[in-house]
Amino acid sequence: MAAKESKLQLVSRHIRAFPDFPKKGILFRDICPILKDPAALTAVIDLFEEHVRKNHQHVDLIVGLDARGFLFGPLLAQRLGTGFILIRKKGKLPGPTVSVAYDLEYGKAEAEIQEDSVTPGQKVVLIDDLLATGGTLFAACELMKRLQAEVLGCLVVIELKELSGGDKLKPHSVFSLVQY
Amino acid sequence: MAAKESKLQLVSRHIRAFPDFPKKGILFRDICPILKDPAALTAVIDLFEEHVRKNHQHVDLIVGLDARGFLFGPLLAQRLGTGFILIRKKGKLPGPTVSVAYDLEYGKAEAEIQEDSVTPGQKVVLIDDLLATGGTLFAACELMKRLQAEVLGCLVVIELKELSGGDKLKPHSVFSLVQY
Repeated sequence: MAAKESKLQLVSRHIRAFPDFPKKGILFRDICPILKDPAALTAVIDLFEEHVRKNHQHVDLIVGLDARGFLFGPLLAQRLGTGFILIRKKGKLPGPTVSVAYDLEYGKAEAEIQEDSVTPGQKVVLIDDLLATGGTLFAACELMKRLQAEVLGCLVVIELKELSGGDKLKPHSVFSLVQY
Repeated sequence: MAAKESKLQLVSRHIRAFPDFPKKGILFRDICPILKDPAALTAVIDLFEEHVRKNHQHVDLIVGLDARGFLFGPLLAQRLGTGFILIRKKGKLPGPTVSVAYDLEYGKAEAEIQEDSVTPGQKVVLIDDLLATGGTLFAACELMKRLQAEVLGCLVVIELKELSGGDKLKPHSVFSLVQY
């Protein structure tokens, strides 16, 4: 228990807040210090790995969200020995794709995935840096549904509880390391 | 030697080409299959790690370019036990930043970094998925220069030789795994 608490504390200590970014009234949680500290980044992946191994017998793919999900997803996938696939903002992926429009905490966007990235029945875990209103992860779950993949759960480093993104994603579970 | 060649072959086999993406006349090299195959992704990081350890006695930070540099950079940084810092498209990073405008193979953009991400004299290695005309990596080198960091070299999975990006980046060296 003590070891786990210390990893969480290490992660927490490496998140900083910037008021009024990217617009007035938004308190931006910056994860850059986690990436800059090898031990803090290792701790994030340790905690994610531990959670996935404890809760899911088999995972086929880790699905990362553009762009900050890319920072953690491949690391987790390598730890688990699984593949990693990308959900990107529209227009970035070549070949046949599927896309879904969604609302952001601030703004609008469209999420896109390559049609052949996942096959029906594959079990996937979604990963991003932060859960706010849940718009991006909801769109990601929707993309998985369209491709008939089974979403085992969502992982985020940070969850902004007051925005209730977790409710929006139900029945999918969200595992977050740090909550505000 | 045989082992190294086989790793390179493994990486090469997991790159596919899409003509006329994102616009007519561009042959897009897609690295998604590398990410989807754990062994291919491990091979990429093995080759990068080997190159860095052989050529640089000390590296302080790995610097990844938005967004596909994020897929490989943190993995390499963890292998080397160094931190990872982000260069992003303008408007994505909070706090005091420095930015540089540049031309893309197709279009224009601005690269940005947090002012406190690197301290003067730190030795850094830049990483991205692909070297085309070198516009993005050139801007990244420029950002490093402004922050007085020392660029040891650039790493890319793919180099499009006919676009001569390597010349543009001189005197900085470029190490690429696969050339077209």
